[in-house]
Amino acid sequence: MARQFDLNSDMGESFGWYKHGVDEDIIRSITSANLGCGFHGGDPSVMRRSVQLAKEHGVAVGAHPGFPDLMGFGRRNLNAKPAEVKDYVTYQVGALQAFCKAAGVPLQHVKPHGALYMMALEDEALAEAIVEAILELDDRLLLYTTGDTAAEDAARRKGLRVVREFFGDRPLHSGGWVMFGYDLKDAGGGTPEGIAQRAVQVVTQGKTVTTDGKTIDFEVDSICIHSDTPGSAQFMSAVRRELEAAGVEVRPAGTYL
Amino acid sequence: MARQFDLNSDMGESFGWYKHGVDEDIIRSITSANLGCGFHGGDPSVMRRSVQLAKEHGVAVGAHPGFPDLMGFGRRNLNAKPAEVKDYVTYQVGALQAFCKAAGVPLQHVKPHGALYMMALEDEALAEAIVEAILELDDRLLLYTTGDTAAEDAARRKGLRVVREFFGDRPLHSGGWVMFGYDLKDAGGGTPEGIAQRAVQVVTQGKTVTTDGKTIDFEVDSICIHSDTPGSAQFMSAVRRELEAAGVEVRPAGTYL
Amino acid sequence: MARQFDLNSDMGESFGWYKHGVDEDIIRSITSANLGCGFHGGDPSVMRRSVQLAKEHGVAVGAHPGFPDLMGFGRRNLNAKPAEVKDYVTYQVGALQAFCKAAGVPLQHVKPHGALYMMALEDEALAEAIVEAILELDDRLLLYTTGDTAAEDAARRKGLRVVREFFGDRPLHSGGWVMFGYDLKDAGGGTPEGIAQRAVQVVTQGKTVTTDGKTIDFEVDSICIHSDTPGSAQFMSAVRRELEAAGVEVRPAGTYL
Amino acid sequence: MARQFDLNSDMGESFGWYKHGVDEDIIRSITSANLGCGFHGGDPSVMRRSVQLAKEHGVAVGAHPGFPDLMGFGRRNLNAKPAEVKDYVTYQVGALQAFCKAAGVPLQHVKPHGALYMMALEDEALAEAIVEAILELDDRLLLYTTGDTAAEDAARRKGLRVVREFFGDRPLHSGGWVMFGYDLKDAGGGTPEGIAQRAVQVVTQGKTVTTDGKTIDFEVDSICIHSDTPGSAQFMSAVRRELEAAGVEVRPAGTYL
Repeated sequence: MARQFDLNSDMGESFGWYKHGVDEDIIRSITSANLGCGFHGGDPSVMRRSVQLAKEHGVAVGAHPGFPDLMGFGRRNLNAKPAEVKDYVTYQVGALQAFCKAAGVPLQHVKPHGALYMMALEDEALAEAIVEAILELDDRLLLYTTGDTAAEDAARRKGLRVVREFFGDRPLHSGGWVMFGYDLKDAGGGTPEGIAQRAVQVVTQGKTVTTDGKTIDFEVDSICIHSDTPGSAQFMSAVRRELEAAGVEVRPAGTYL
Repeated sequence: MARQFDLNSDMGESFGWYKHGVDEDIIRSITSANLGCGFHGGDPSVMRRSVQLAKEHGVAVGAHPGFPDLMGFGRRNLNAKPAEVKDYVTYQVGALQAFCKAAGVPLQHVKPHGALYMMALEDEALAEAIVEAILELDDRLLLYTTGDTAAEDAARRKGLRVVREFFGDRPLHSGGWVMFGYDLKDAGGGTPEGIAQRAVQVVTQGKTVTTDGKTIDFEVDSICIHSDTPGSAQFMSAVRRELEAAGVEVRPAGTYL
Repeated sequence: MARQFDLNSDMGESFGWYKHGVDEDIIRSITSANLGCGFHGGDPSVMRRSVQLAKEHGVAVGAHPGFPDLMGFGRRNLNAKPAEVKDYVTYQVGALQAFCKAAGVPLQHVKPHGALYMMALEDEALAEAIVEAILELDDRLLLYTTGDTAAEDAARRKGLRVVREFFGDRPLHSGGWVMFGYDLKDAGGGTPEGIAQRAVQVVTQGKTVTTDGKTIDFEVDSICIHSDTPGSAQFMSAVRRELEAAGVEVRPAGTYL
Repeated sequence: MARQFDLNSDMGESFGWYKHGVDEDIIRSITSANLGCGFHGGDPSVMRRSVQLAKEHGVAVGAHPGFPDLMGFGRRNLNAKPAEVKDYVTYQVGALQAFCKAAGVPLQHVKPHGALYMMALEDEALAEAIVEAILELDDRLLLYTTGDTAAEDAARRKGLRVVREFFGDRPLHSGGWVMFGYDLKDAGGGTPEGIAQRAVQVVTQGKTVTTDGKTIDFEVDSICIHSDTPGSAQFMSAVRRELEAAGVEVRPAGTYL
């Protein structure tokens, strides 16, 4: 039986008159879209349009809640209390659920954004707060995060299903951690072909090469490419093509997990 | 059979460290609470606490969405397009629905806030946008507004139930319009007793006295007192006591409409 | 003696990670830059970079204050009181003055943005509020606005110097008013050559053709092309080239007014 | 000769319709006011009113810039880069300078707010960024901070004058650090008399008692009581009265430093 696999991208992060990312292009290759919910990017009108865009392309919709830091695009650590973070997640996921309801599509998942995502990989209380917020809303939702982290642990412990993702456009440290302040060349050479081969390897073999040249085991359920990475649509298109050439069936995680 | 009647108040409009209104007091007298949803007031943590507060007092919960104008508390007309307004309502109502879901209480109604409320009394396209946003989310929700306005018309036309409210703490112009920049003395003399008697009259007789001394017919389904009106909790307490003394059963509009 | 003339552009309107406009290109052709001040666009870091960019190109710096409406990019009328608007202008101009001070360049002018600009063309009290805010800070500042409007009147009356501008990328109604929701084709055919010829005509003859085909007198002191109009840099480059070919010396208004 | 001494308070932190603090009361006892500049609290209209209030009471004006975190009142650490923080300080101080210019009063000082204040006590790069922002605007400004910290060091090294303050309403740890999440009872017993005696001791003897009962040397130039501490106006009034009874002349730091 063909392996089934999910491709996701952060998108829907434009705001007002500001355009961000290449949503209309990358939507053609992905199976799951993580949509900004207004705190770090995205606004109500962007959210409605993004849900509609996903619907038209048969792409599953996820919420991409972040810190209330539009000026920093949610990419700066904020020392908010876990209870506050829980409230922020409830608020943003609820807002996106409304646009899903209006469009007649289900909400598939939640993936924290930026600094919130990164902090929840290590901070247990924060991870639990996020998981609790999600469970209170809908316990069938999936949590997209990096495997073998506080976030995955909290979700497994509390009964929330996890999609472990691999950043196709970010190098991986030998410790198994995604790296920012990265050089795209360290992620598959920074070419569509290299990025696609790296993706095929991690999907079909469960292995990847880290920045210091080691090959490590790395089990993943989805590959993410950020829509604001230069060349992202070409990268994701190549990833999808090569995965399908390798016999992998590309479809939303929620349909087979 | 006793007349059943609803008492509502705008509350949950604190923000961060800023306190606003006397929610903990007025909640004791009302049956329906209109909660700020983050755009003009209220923040995610305030929303969770406010839903909890309403739940503890058996008070029905409503969304109170406003313009994205925290600096002006949503009380300044903003020339947003109807489609934008629709998106703002969807977003804010959805966010509050999430806190209701988390608390295990239903959302009863939507009442636009401030300038959005006032503009929708006259602007047909705006009124329709608000009604459409609500219908897409849940067609059993109630719309709180002033009767005989564009807002009521749009709701009736599209099949959304309406709760026509009377502002207990605002004078009424002979044209049937609520007045801002008001003198509280013109609303029942500005005393708890006067305000309560004015409320009893409008509820039991369907009549009220306007600022120019005329007695007009005014059919209403709920009485509102703003939680940030000085003395609001005393006013609402008196209104409830006098209504009950007059044989009116005070309960949420959603339970009998 | 050669006619001296100013070319201005709205720029510095990026925000956080959001890029807006083609500042680095259009800066090469203009003599005066109107910089976003954080309310509708621009943020503190963008402001510092934009002042530096202007300094490097010998371009005079102006403040471009707007309504506090980032989601609507300051392009939606907001019913703020004149006193509030005065405070908004003081705040934003002061913030930009600080970056000018830090960079060692003078602030040359103030040009209201978007809806604030448009409202001040007709609303006398609003126009006066803007003028008063500017005069309190520095009575040598210039006000960029459209001639024969409430804004020009208020400035003249109170002793603030005015630069009357012509929108090179916007059609003009026969009433003398700039038109939004416009078709660029109605402004010089929407080509660099057409826009440049239209600019040369208004500068050298004091005349322009309106959307209904009339040639009207129109005395102007500066030509504006918005940096977010598609093709803006090419348009402004053509305008500058043709003006210079016509013997006009292009330089900041503050150097000759 | 009488010792001269400064009393300061954080104020001007209301926002829009939200009132915060007891500015009108505490202003009667202090000599220097630290005014919110719009990022964590304060808005343009509040700033104008607050400068006016200070002017009427002969109180020196200072800027109180914070992180762009209105929802958290600037009291949460934000991992902003030093260059960003520098831009935030320039922006906010510039905005307040404008209101000072409009009112015809000088700006005396800058005191970072909340988490920015606390982070700058330890983070050298952040402290330098703040100091540089101030020096670029006006090298005669004073920096209010806690003595023997990264902030004081950076200021001394770069030639910015420092006012070392003592928090009259916060306990002091034996390490010399102010404590938050505090119990007011640990600061002079939490009574006006106790707080006043504690203030007199630190001013006249340069000593204070820490939370663990040690008496340590603590040289200070100003005493701060936050306007949002319950009882703040009574506390500051008592401090002033007792200091004057002890022969201390109470006046703005800028007049004698």
